[in-house]
Amino acid sequence: MAIERLTDAERARLATDLPTWRMVEGRDAITRSFRFKDFSEAWGFMARVALLAEAQNHHPEWSNVWNRVEITLTTHDAGGLSARDVALARAIDSLLA
Amino acid sequence: MAIERLTDAERARLATDLPTWRMVEGRDAITRSFRFKDFSEAWGFMARVALLAEAQNHHPEWSNVWNRVEITLTTHDAGGLSARDVALARAIDSLLA
Repeated sequence: MAIERLTDAERARLATDLPTWRMVEGRDAITRSFRFKDFSEAWGFMARVALLAEAQNHHPEWSNVWNRVEITLTTHDAGGLSARDVALARAIDSLLA
Repeated sequence: MAIERLTDAERARLATDLPTWRMVEGRDAITRSFRFKDFSEAWGFMARVALLAEAQNHHPEWSNVWNRVEITLTTHDAGGLSARDVALARAIDSLLA
């Protein structure tokens, strides 16, 4: 069963639903940068995101350099953004709320 | 106290000492790609690298997409490769030996 990409109406709501995420230029994907006190704090956050990702069976493209973490979300099986990305982004945001 | 960059003699030994790592084009840094069975296995490896990095107080630039991990090592305080990168690369290799 194919995963459906976000509809135009759902996309229109992204800016208000996920104001801290931005579109990746040239890709149908969203990204957010995070900055922590040090590596330990960044890694603790990544560990929590890893648990969310595994629980949702939806995994980020992400990178880390010491206290910084960059997370990009897209759905390869859908060829772009899907409800899975919105759900994971919301869950990640909740970790920092 | 400044951290010293690798000497020419030390650099000449990199290819034999760390044969699975390659130089990053345009940077004084080394990189290696890893592929695992799935995210769980990749994350387990990353957790072990995180412990090494914190213990050595030397942290990688790295990224992960599901079962793939890319690690780049350089020493920002030295402006390039130092003995810290060689030590961390060796320790990472040992995890997979």
